[in-house]
Amino acid sequence: MATVFMEPSTRTRLSFYYAMEKLGGKTVEFGSPKVSSTDKGESFEDTIRIIDGYGTDLIVVRHPSEGASKLAAEVADAKVINAGDGSREHPTQTLLDLYTIWRIFGKISGLKIGVLGDLRYGRTASSLAYGLSMFNDVKCHFISPHILKMKEEVLDRVKGKLDYEEHEDINSVMEDIDVLYVTRVQKERFPDSEAYEKVRNAYTINREFLEKTQSKTIILHPLPRVDEITKDVDDMPNSRYFEQAANGMMIRATLISEVLGLEI
Amino acid sequence: MATVFMEPSTRTRLSFYYAMEKLGGKTVEFGSPKVSSTDKGESFEDTIRIIDGYGTDLIVVRHPSEGASKLAAEVADAKVINAGDGSREHPTQTLLDLYTIWRIFGKISGLKIGVLGDLRYGRTASSLAYGLSMFNDVKCHFISPHILKMKEEVLDRVKGKLDYEEHEDINSVMEDIDVLYVTRVQKERFPDSEAYEKVRNAYTINREFLEKTQSKTIILHPLPRVDEITKDVDDMPNSRYFEQAANGMMIRATLISEVLGLEI
Amino acid sequence: MATVFMEPSTRTRLSFYYAMEKLGGKTVEFGSPKVSSTDKGESFEDTIRIIDGYGTDLIVVRHPSEGASKLAAEVADAKVINAGDGSREHPTQTLLDLYTIWRIFGKISGLKIGVLGDLRYGRTASSLAYGLSMFNDVKCHFISPHILKMKEEVLDRVKGKLDYEEHEDINSVMEDIDVLYVTRVQKERFPDSEAYEKVRNAYTINREFLEKTQSKTIILHPLPRVDEITKDVDDMPNSRYFEQAANGMMIRATLISEVLGLEI
Repeated sequence: MATVFMEPSTRTRLSFYYAMEKLGGKTVEFGSPKVSSTDKGESFEDTIRIIDGYGTDLIVVRHPSEGASKLAAEVADAKVINAGDGSREHPTQTLLDLYTIWRIFGKISGLKIGVLGDLRYGRTASSLAYGLSMFNDVKCHFISPHILKMKEEVLDRVKGKLDYEEHEDINSVMEDIDVLYVTRVQKERFPDSEAYEKVRNAYTINREFLEKTQSKTIILHPLPRVDEITKDVDDMPNSRYFEQAANGMMIRATLISEVLGLEI
Repeated sequence: MATVFMEPSTRTRLSFYYAMEKLGGKTVEFGSPKVSSTDKGESFEDTIRIIDGYGTDLIVVRHPSEGASKLAAEVADAKVINAGDGSREHPTQTLLDLYTIWRIFGKISGLKIGVLGDLRYGRTASSLAYGLSMFNDVKCHFISPHILKMKEEVLDRVKGKLDYEEHEDINSVMEDIDVLYVTRVQKERFPDSEAYEKVRNAYTINREFLEKTQSKTIILHPLPRVDEITKDVDDMPNSRYFEQAANGMMIRATLISEVLGLEI
Repeated sequence: MATVFMEPSTRTRLSFYYAMEKLGGKTVEFGSPKVSSTDKGESFEDTIRIIDGYGTDLIVVRHPSEGASKLAAEVADAKVINAGDGSREHPTQTLLDLYTIWRIFGKISGLKIGVLGDLRYGRTASSLAYGLSMFNDVKCHFISPHILKMKEEVLDRVKGKLDYEEHEDINSVMEDIDVLYVTRVQKERFPDSEAYEKVRNAYTINREFLEKTQSKTIILHPLPRVDEITKDVDDMPNSRYFEQAANGMMIRATLISEVLGLEI
């Protein structure tokens, strides 16, 4: 397996690595753009072709441009797994998100799930929406500031398959959801810091908020988190995001086995 | 095996890595200068001594300074392979270049080979000239702008052993060569961008050019390429540079076996 | 084993890697801060929790902040080894320093040991003082410019257990010591470059100095060195710092075995 990560990543990169170790295979890290020939202006396709030529079975791609993984799959003989491209999709994250929910509730169908934060640029939110739309009877609450609402193209794709509502206020839905999937809201998305601070305060999940609402809602987060979930939540029974991250390794090992047709 | 790469590299670094995996050995990457103690001002010799002290069998060196590999070989007990030093030499690249030509033609002696681009600072061109000078009856055409002509010291070393001509115009030799080895011409080598653009246009290999000359000439390139060979050439039968890159792994595995005295 | 190195390192990082290879285990490198999610503002604890969640047995931490390893040990189920934190301690370095001295003299008790350079900010010097204070009858000479004297908290901890004297002049003690442990003095520590140059000249160990003092004193250094020991010392019998660095691998393999309860 070769990992070609053109953006920073801890969780995804390492969990693929550990997954491959578990399966007894080897991983070659292409390395960050800085230590490789992309500095010399080489195209992404050429980089993929070269790595493919060395006889890699599987290439895992993380790239800032949308469609990079698709492009890689077109030029490579090796299998390609999309480990996040642009602000579009992050499908292996969704697999582990769904697996985590299923482990906790024993089902996905019938659940009520809130997705909070930057739904416009956060690729995990889009991918989760696609994933949830494949199950029956899921109710989704998309909670975001107006300028970070789920993209129209995402809503169009899930329309008719997923029952959803859009909200700006977290409080109105908190009592009604089984899972709250929190994502980070980045300062850069806002015109001024006042607008950002307002959103940040409204969307921060802390112990006081969870105790006040007496919520049993499970809190998930794709991580890394900065301060959208405060540390005092970590030891509450609601918080399952570290368990969620740990699931990433097993899910990716399973995916690799499937993709390569391994017997395990 | 330890890889000590003080310059960016994809092909060379990864193909050594894959080669060692094929042979069942382990590779330690020293990492880029940024993540290692060279930041603290440690000398290259000291770095090599330390790595050698840990019991490495083989050290592969890529370094921007000429003679770095030789220096490493002097201070280390381990075997050292030069994976490119300064603008001087890149011998393992030449091994794979020669192997690729031999695989295509079944011979090297008797061939007519054009070498195009930056022959002054491009270490692959110098090394290829040395390599070709070891075969009988090879005719070389060195094609470059005047300011990027092959260095006198290189010409001196091959004189009498290699039959060569120097050209500035690619068109005059295109019909007469079996192989065209293209290298990149970097903008920084030129006094102004006008001079650069002129050369770039004259030396770009594209589909139109190859179709016009009805050339069956095999096109090779050490890669990475930027735009000196356009993408529309990739699927023409002339283009063999991705196959050439893929050969790098087997050639390096063979070299490692030889150097370490492995039986394979 | 996962190595989490938040500061540049050659020796320590590689020697842990080689040590784990020797023991037949696998190493995952978290990578430099630049290629990982710490760029996105993730806390160190979260990073450790994630890595721990993937089922790592051992986490090796190098961090610029004091107490980082302790924090990691608190949040992780895996064992944690401190590979240097802030300007406070570097215990595995001390293990190899003591081992090197013991290999040369067959003992540590009864020896007279000079420690030279930046004793204030150099974590190897503090850790060595703690280590030596555990042996009987060791005499220590701490030699440094006034502003880089050993910290009070370090002196307080060894007081009564270690017989030490403080000096500013190296010449006065040179005849009386078995080992001189040299550390780097960094320019940034001084108010102006004149003050720095004065210290640098006074504290540089070169061939002339060693020959003049007819010293048989063993010269050690945690490395990397810049010019505080000149190259013309490298082939004198006094110099044992490359051997010292090489010992790092075996010492760390032994430590890993102990920590993980391996039988070797």
